[in-house]
Amino acid sequence: MKKTGEKVSNAVIRRLPRYYRQLTELRLRGVVRISSGALAKDMGLTASQIRQDLFCFGGFGQQGYGYNVEKLREEIGAILGINRGNTAIILGVGNLGHALIQNFKFGNNGFSVTAAFDVDDSLVGTKIGAVQIYHVDELEEYLRTYRVDVGVLTVPRVFAAEMAQKLADGGVKGIWNFANVELKLNAPDVIVENVHFSDSLLALSYMIGEPVYDEENK
Amino acid sequence: MKKTGEKVSNAVIRRLPRYYRQLTELRLRGVVRISSGALAKDMGLTASQIRQDLFCFGGFGQQGYGYNVEKLREEIGAILGINRGNTAIILGVGNLGHALIQNFKFGNNGFSVTAAFDVDDSLVGTKIGAVQIYHVDELEEYLRTYRVDVGVLTVPRVFAAEMAQKLADGGVKGIWNFANVELKLNAPDVIVENVHFSDSLLALSYMIGEPVYDEENK
Repeated sequence: MKKTGEKVSNAVIRRLPRYYRQLTELRLRGVVRISSGALAKDMGLTASQIRQDLFCFGGFGQQGYGYNVEKLREEIGAILGINRGNTAIILGVGNLGHALIQNFKFGNNGFSVTAAFDVDDSLVGTKIGAVQIYHVDELEEYLRTYRVDVGVLTVPRVFAAEMAQKLADGGVKGIWNFANVELKLNAPDVIVENVHFSDSLLALSYMIGEPVYDEENK
Repeated sequence: MKKTGEKVSNAVIRRLPRYYRQLTELRLRGVVRISSGALAKDMGLTASQIRQDLFCFGGFGQQGYGYNVEKLREEIGAILGINRGNTAIILGVGNLGHALIQNFKFGNNGFSVTAAFDVDDSLVGTKIGAVQIYHVDELEEYLRTYRVDVGVLTVPRVFAAEMAQKLADGGVKGIWNFANVELKLNAPDVIVENVHFSDSLLALSYMIGEPVYDEENK
C-alpha cells in the first residue's frame, strides 16, 4: 500500500494514529464521509497536509467526494498493523502495569496481551482479567516458546535496561517503554517507543509559563 | 532568557525536556562538561541542532569548552519552569491516577500534588502518601480556594469533557490529559497536553511492521 522505496517520515507516522482515532470518533458519531478540509479542521491540520500524508500511502480520497470514513479508517488501521494479530507481554505489574492491563484497550489497537511478569511472589500465579502473571525467571522460556511482538516495560527504572535486553534477546520486535529511562539496547532491529511522562509534563510546564500566542496577544 | 518576540517551535519545546533528562543523567554520572557533539550523539541529534536550540534561549555554550552540565541543566530547568512552584491536582483515582500519585516523581519536575478527587466514597477521605482524596463535588470550591496550575485528568473518558471544563472554569492553566479523548474546551488560554497511549502503541505497531531503514538494508 505504501509507495515502494519511500521512507515515511516520523511526523507522518505520528499523525497516522491520530487520523485513526479521529475516524473512529467520526464513525461512532455516524459520519459516513468527510472532506479533507473538515477532517483538517477537526484535527488542527491543513487540508493539504492531510492529502499529502494519505498520498504517501496511495491516496484514498476521491476528488469532490472526500473520504469514506469507514473505508479510510480500515485502510489506515491496516497500515498501522491493527489486523496483524500483534501480541504483547507486560513486564512489571505495579500500579502502572496493572492499570494498563486492566484499563487500556489493547484490543482496540490490534494487540492481545498474552502474559505478564513480575518478581512479587504474591502476584505470581494470579490473574488480572484473563492475563496470567508469571515470575520474571520464566521470561526467557516464555519468549522461546511463544511469539511476542511487543514487550511493555513497566518495571522500576533500575531494572529497565536488563529487562529490555532480555526482551530483545528473546526476539521481540518492539519495546513500549514506560520506565522513564533511555534504553541503549544491543539489538539494532528492536524498535523502542518511549512514553516519557516527565517530558510531557515538563513541556506542559513550559507552555503554561509562556504566553501562548506571542504575536496575537498584543 | 528567551530572546524577545521569538516564538519557540513545538519541536524545540519537545526537545527541552529531553535535554533536561539527559543532563540529569550526565550529572548523576559525574560528568562536569560536555561538548555539543557528545551531547548530540547521546541524544540522536546533531551538534548544530543542539547549538541552534539552545541559541533560542540565549546560548550557554562557550567556544571550545562545551557546556557546563550542572549549569546548563539548571538553566534549562528554569526555562521549563522547574522552580516555579507549580501545583497539580489529580482527577480520578483509578489505577492510573493511583499509579501517578504513588510512583510518578512530580517533585522532580517542579510540581507538587496538592489534592486528588474521585467519586468513589470508599476512596474519599483517604490519602495516598501525603495526598488527600476529596469528593469531586468539592472540586469547584477547592479551585476557588487554592491556586492550581495543572489538573491531571485520569477519569474515564465519558467524564473527561465535563471535568476538563470544570478545571478550566476553575482557573487552571493546563490540563494533563490521560483520558484518551480530544478535549474541546471553551477556554482558549488553557493548555491541554495529551498523553495518548493508543497513539504511541499504534506508532510502535506501524514501526515494527515496516523495515526500519529502507535504504540501508538493501
